[in-house]
Amino acid sequence: MISSDVINMLELGQRAKAASQHLAALTTEQKNAALGRIADLLAAHTDDILRANREDIARATANGVDPVWIRDRLDLEKRMSGLIADVRRVVDLPDPVGTVYDERDVPPNLRVHKRRVPIGVLGVIYESRPNVTVDVSTLALKTGNAVILRGGSDTLTTNLALVDVLRRALREAGIPDDAMQYVASADRRYVTEMLKLHQFIDLIIPRGGASLHDFCREHSTIPVIIGGMGICHLFVDHSANLPASLDVIANAKLQRPAVCNALDTLLVHERIAASFLPQVVERLAAAGVQFRAEPRAHALLDHPAVRAAREGDFDTEWMGLTLGLKVVRDLDEAIAHIRAHSTQHSDGILTEDAAAAERFLNAVDSAAVYWNASTRFTDGSALGLGAEVAISTQKLHARGPMALEELTTYKWVVVGQYTPRP
Amino acid sequence: MISSDVINMLELGQRAKAASQHLAALTTEQKNAALGRIADLLAAHTDDILRANREDIARATANGVDPVWIRDRLDLEKRMSGLIADVRRVVDLPDPVGTVYDERDVPPNLRVHKRRVPIGVLGVIYESRPNVTVDVSTLALKTGNAVILRGGSDTLTTNLALVDVLRRALREAGIPDDAMQYVASADRRYVTEMLKLHQFIDLIIPRGGASLHDFCREHSTIPVIIGGMGICHLFVDHSANLPASLDVIANAKLQRPAVCNALDTLLVHERIAASFLPQVVERLAAAGVQFRAEPRAHALLDHPAVRAAREGDFDTEWMGLTLGLKVVRDLDEAIAHIRAHSTQHSDGILTEDAAAAERFLNAVDSAAVYWNASTRFTDGSALGLGAEVAISTQKLHARGPMALEELTTYKWVVVGQYTPRP
Repeated sequence: MISSDVINMLELGQRAKAASQHLAALTTEQKNAALGRIADLLAAHTDDILRANREDIARATANGVDPVWIRDRLDLEKRMSGLIADVRRVVDLPDPVGTVYDERDVPPNLRVHKRRVPIGVLGVIYESRPNVTVDVSTLALKTGNAVILRGGSDTLTTNLALVDVLRRALREAGIPDDAMQYVASADRRYVTEMLKLHQFIDLIIPRGGASLHDFCREHSTIPVIIGGMGICHLFVDHSANLPASLDVIANAKLQRPAVCNALDTLLVHERIAASFLPQVVERLAAAGVQFRAEPRAHALLDHPAVRAAREGDFDTEWMGLTLGLKVVRDLDEAIAHIRAHSTQHSDGILTEDAAAAERFLNAVDSAAVYWNASTRFTDGSALGLGAEVAISTQKLHARGPMALEELTTYKWVVVGQYTPRP
Repeated sequence: MISSDVINMLELGQRAKAASQHLAALTTEQKNAALGRIADLLAAHTDDILRANREDIARATANGVDPVWIRDRLDLEKRMSGLIADVRRVVDLPDPVGTVYDERDVPPNLRVHKRRVPIGVLGVIYESRPNVTVDVSTLALKTGNAVILRGGSDTLTTNLALVDVLRRALREAGIPDDAMQYVASADRRYVTEMLKLHQFIDLIIPRGGASLHDFCREHSTIPVIIGGMGICHLFVDHSANLPASLDVIANAKLQRPAVCNALDTLLVHERIAASFLPQVVERLAAAGVQFRAEPRAHALLDHPAVRAAREGDFDTEWMGLTLGLKVVRDLDEAIAHIRAHSTQHSDGILTEDAAAAERFLNAVDSAAVYWNASTRFTDGSALGLGAEVAISTQKLHARGPMALEELTTYKWVVVGQYTPRP
């Protein structure tokens, strides 16, 4: 069901922009009613959606796609009820739009505040995982933003079935369905066109691997949230509680090895390396971890799962059961290593020394810095934000998990008494 | 003194990045000491700087550049003491770096906060106005950011003299002078190279006309603060206090006609147009304003300064003594006109009707929206921010005046008790 029609991206952008002005004026109650309708219709049309999903699965299977990948990313069968529950949870999240802050008097007689407003139109470019279609659209709706979606070609049939339900729910709730639009083509030139629509799209959110982010950064004239890629470090200081540290390291490496906040490199202070590193290897090797050790670490380890690190290993996001190991002289060398190799996602120190911890937390310039905790907490729900649309590793607008508030901006509201500037 | 050497932009970026890590660790006292040293050395070297400035002025004069333009933008002679006073004022501004906010507990036992940190390295691309060299560098220093500057070729000699003093002051204050770097070439290819240095530069701030902003947006792989261009509107509702409105309109149009927050288009409710528009024309024509009126407005006016608006007039930032005039049926038509023609900089309503004002303030999505005040207040110092590096008209990171806080970002700081993620 890949569309062969030519898509008029300009018109699509114009329609989204017009719809975004309607969305910005909705009350929280109106947005919540529409979200409730989305949840209801997703439940009512689950059969249609899963039928479309089975088409995508059959095509992927025929094309020889890895069945594990299909199960983990493409298949919605076991995910529909969770997806619908997530939509109902968005209803309960606080609506940041309209919040007034930084209110004050400004001479000669002005009353000034900032007011949270939607960003406008979000362009979201993603790969596989059709649940992103629903997640992003509902978080955008809650914050009054229109979306233009472009998912992976592998999931086009599923995505179109989902978008059909989403748009129907909007219409039934009295909201223009142009607020959620889908670029229904596998042709990548529409992605390139989309990235140039700065007169209509306010923000590009890529959800996918490093190459997608690089492509967006290279071609977009619209601000892009760069993120998702995490080469994450933990540094074990000589004063750390070692048995407790071992638990944190195991959690950071093993809980979900294929996600961006999983541990990639362990740095160990030289004073404890000889005793601690073998314990790390023993514990994690039992769970299937393979190790890449730099020379000083390698010399301390005699285990079949350990091999010498090669060029580039410390600049690799492992996305699986591999862990880099390095012995460092001191805190400064740990900080220098992280500055050189981190993607500024999530990095932490394990120590009993508060001064060392404070120095680390200041010197390491990552979106999230940790003292005595697992890097796995860099996540919208783990940090108590309720949801997230992306994890930013760039410096502008938002760092780390982007939740509802990060999908808004502000305007200055200035109230005078027919006040000229003096 | 245009350098013919090849500039290694990669190395320049690397040095700025390394220096930015040093800057980020400075205390407020250290930064203020360096700012004081800058003010002292600018005063001590005023003669050298003005000698360099006279070279640029002589060259511009020989090239036939408009003397008014030279006086208003290039000539530093009468500006040096103000420039030095501005640097001393930056010392007194509060330092946002290190501020802790959004502190809270997160299960199971985490203490989480956000901490303000410098952005890192700012790339600033500007035209003429050598005072920008000092303004931007000192605001960057106060916020712990390194800068890479690229000013206009007309002012290269002056800028190099200023940068020489700035860097000397840094060295004397024990700060690496790589924190302030200047691209000493008129060759535009270095601008293009600079815009691709996303591994070293975190933010591009263009200071100049629309074509500079467009160039940066088109070529940059680094986030760009788009702004500066303002097509600004005031809408006079039928309930407005008309004599008071006239004062606001005159202020918005006449106080500084060539700046971005000056009034470009006046919208008048049809119920008061016949009586009010002639008063506007009489008052402003006496100050030299020319008018471009759409047909309904034109029909009400019989004055030599008024002529019919032409295609494109309402999409023009006048930057001078011209004003567009339009009669609108009602508030909705005023909002629709502004949505179609505003650059989302500064737009206002003049009315006694609080409900109409609130509707306008919500529906008009500009960086600053005004009720009964002049658009001229969109400015860092007028809004009480103490200073500004740019005025943003885009939605990400910052809208409106960008002052010290907008030159910072944040990191998440997560403190646990050897906490694995449950």
